[in-house]
Amino acid sequence: MWSSWSPLRRLQRIAVSASRPAAAGNNNYIGGMQRREQSALAHRVYITRKVPPEGLEIVRRCGRVKFELWDSDDPVPRDELLKKVKGVDGLLCMLTEKVDAELLDAAGPNLKVLSTMSVGFDHLCLDELKKRGIRVGYTPDVLTDAVAELTVALLLATSRRLIEAAHEAKTGGWGTWRTLWLCGYELANSTVGILGLGRIGVAIAERLKPFKVKKFLYTDVAPRPQLAEMINAEYVSLEELAKQSDFLAACCALTPETQGICNRKLFSQMKKNAIFINTSRGGIVNQEDLYEALSAGQIAAAGLDVTTPEPLPTDHPLFKLKNCVILPHIASASYTTRNAMSALAANNLLAGLRGSQSLTRHHRAQDWREKGHTQDGTPVCRKAPQTGLEPHTHEGVGPGQTNPLRHHTH
Amino acid sequence: MWSSWSPLRRLQRIAVSASRPAAAGNNNYIGGMQRREQSALAHRVYITRKVPPEGLEIVRRCGRVKFELWDSDDPVPRDELLKKVKGVDGLLCMLTEKVDAELLDAAGPNLKVLSTMSVGFDHLCLDELKKRGIRVGYTPDVLTDAVAELTVALLLATSRRLIEAAHEAKTGGWGTWRTLWLCGYELANSTVGILGLGRIGVAIAERLKPFKVKKFLYTDVAPRPQLAEMINAEYVSLEELAKQSDFLAACCALTPETQGICNRKLFSQMKKNAIFINTSRGGIVNQEDLYEALSAGQIAAAGLDVTTPEPLPTDHPLFKLKNCVILPHIASASYTTRNAMSALAANNLLAGLRGSQSLTRHHRAQDWREKGHTQDGTPVCRKAPQTGLEPHTHEGVGPGQTNPLRHHTH
Repeated sequence: MWSSWSPLRRLQRIAVSASRPAAAGNNNYIGGMQRREQSALAHRVYITRKVPPEGLEIVRRCGRVKFELWDSDDPVPRDELLKKVKGVDGLLCMLTEKVDAELLDAAGPNLKVLSTMSVGFDHLCLDELKKRGIRVGYTPDVLTDAVAELTVALLLATSRRLIEAAHEAKTGGWGTWRTLWLCGYELANSTVGILGLGRIGVAIAERLKPFKVKKFLYTDVAPRPQLAEMINAEYVSLEELAKQSDFLAACCALTPETQGICNRKLFSQMKKNAIFINTSRGGIVNQEDLYEALSAGQIAAAGLDVTTPEPLPTDHPLFKLKNCVILPHIASASYTTRNAMSALAANNLLAGLRGSQSLTRHHRAQDWREKGHTQDGTPVCRKAPQTGLEPHTHEGVGPGQTNPLRHHTH
Repeated sequence: MWSSWSPLRRLQRIAVSASRPAAAGNNNYIGGMQRREQSALAHRVYITRKVPPEGLEIVRRCGRVKFELWDSDDPVPRDELLKKVKGVDGLLCMLTEKVDAELLDAAGPNLKVLSTMSVGFDHLCLDELKKRGIRVGYTPDVLTDAVAELTVALLLATSRRLIEAAHEAKTGGWGTWRTLWLCGYELANSTVGILGLGRIGVAIAERLKPFKVKKFLYTDVAPRPQLAEMINAEYVSLEELAKQSDFLAACCALTPETQGICNRKLFSQMKKNAIFINTSRGGIVNQEDLYEALSAGQIAAAGLDVTTPEPLPTDHPLFKLKNCVILPHIASASYTTRNAMSALAANNLLAGLRGSQSLTRHHRAQDWREKGHTQDGTPVCRKAPQTGLEPHTHEGVGPGQTNPLRHHTH
């Protein structure tokens, strides 16, 4: 049996003692309990990265954990990881570590909890984890603000041509004042369309509203009235969304059904002055079609925080276009949020080690499925997923939840 | 006697007839009345640039104007300008044309109206215009949305490191996922300080509020309760503004008193994680002091849409800093706004040619002074300015108004 936990920040309070860390060579770092406290009762934990300080401090201050850490900003090599996980009770990992049968076999039967500091869980073989009864924690919710903020930042940078403008200033293109030089499109009086309305879509709309947006539209598998009401958004078909939007922001999960949903057909329905923004997952966009739409002037510009693959090779044609802004997947990259993610991952780890009784106040994925609701209280399809690889999105769709855009298959 | 006019967009409706344009060589373009209409009653007008289409259309559709145009995106050469203005009744210019005694003498006694498509009027010798009884129109107000939007865009691009991030993606710096790579500072739970609270400052705060800003502070020559109430902002001293702000946005006029107001002293009072944004005028910043503050890590980052001089030479040290975002003065550069500016400039021109009776519903600069109010209804100092060169700001401080930050002299 396996579970997925919603935020456990309040559990932070039950951390009981602090201890001084001790350094070890070769990027390894050992910390946690004082030597005299290292009894048979202590949990052994491996942490695969130098996590932001807040999370590390939580693990450190916990009196019943002895942890070892890959003390680097870069991922731990696979060999090292396979060696270090042997016999651990808990593993705190990033999205860079593939958690599969090999790794779980290397860890052995002590492993009770796997806590990933990510909202996505493509890197986890959930079936293998489930088979072994290993509990799984991840970090949704805490990054909603950061992702919504970055989406607005990217939208404005794209529509007001900031990257191009900064480049012109730096490289001598800034000459005399010209009436239409570097002119962009304003949000005032515009129609904004949201592809996949969840917490993040709502947060984006809330932030865009005071820019005098005229109308919000959205599309999804079905109307989501509770969320839509918060931002006074109208439910339309994907085609209408494309036709009417001056700004179109994609915030949906990546699933087999949303794979390549932003394609030639969609772009050809859009306005010539439309701005397309994607901060969800690269796979929802057909990049060849986007390149054509951008270079032919079918749409005005695009801003992408996510691509296929990541990193996008520097010789990719999209990098050649002035009207395409590409960011290296930084939507959640704020000190506050990354610290909150590390704190949540640490608390998930500790809660998992303590056992299920500390999770009584939180829904499990199983409960969500039974109730047919997502974490934010909106209905989802009840059908269980057919694949081992689950939907992967900033929205933090839980394991076992299904695609909110399943109907939009092309 | 001279006047300054507030927006006259509604006058657009009184345009009476349209006529086809006729092209002329050498960047010159002649349009306006049909030949049979070119009576002695027609007004002759010179337009110094290919203005955005909306404004041009207004002049074209007016039945009583014959205009000649410098049909280029670049400024008209001075010699050409001096030749073309001879005998005109009206002149529509940009901020690139210095309107001084020489130009006014070249135009001769027919010149009744000077309409500049700009909110600043540094380029106008107001004393010379006043002496000759030439009416002056400019274009405030219409760019508030665009400037506020660009300010938020620049703030987010600076705090979330978009320029740096796009550069890394494009040049191969995008590698594996790292916990704190390219992390920036979120607006959530922050304190935002506004230096000089006017319409634009209010518009900026309104747009930032839903990013979960904790508190707005502002400083100015005196509390501006009506404006402050709109955004629930607290009045503080300049020192407190520097000390408390996580984000400090400068929106004040450039005057002798605000010249260099953002200097070593101010930066040294700011937080180490503070972001400084300037979309007002370059002259309010001591750039050497800013460079030191940024390179020494006294503040986290700066975003500048304005510099001294403009364009800023590409070998300027500020261009070397990763934590300094420099834009080429594009705050009002949106198609909507530049068109609205051209329409307002055209309407100001036509209203001026028709005579003062069409201005009865609008305050003149003289009235503002007498009432001691700015255009947006907030009190200003009553003291008349001592210099020929007036305050110059996006806020559209009218000729004859004084500096809202006069008390902050350092």
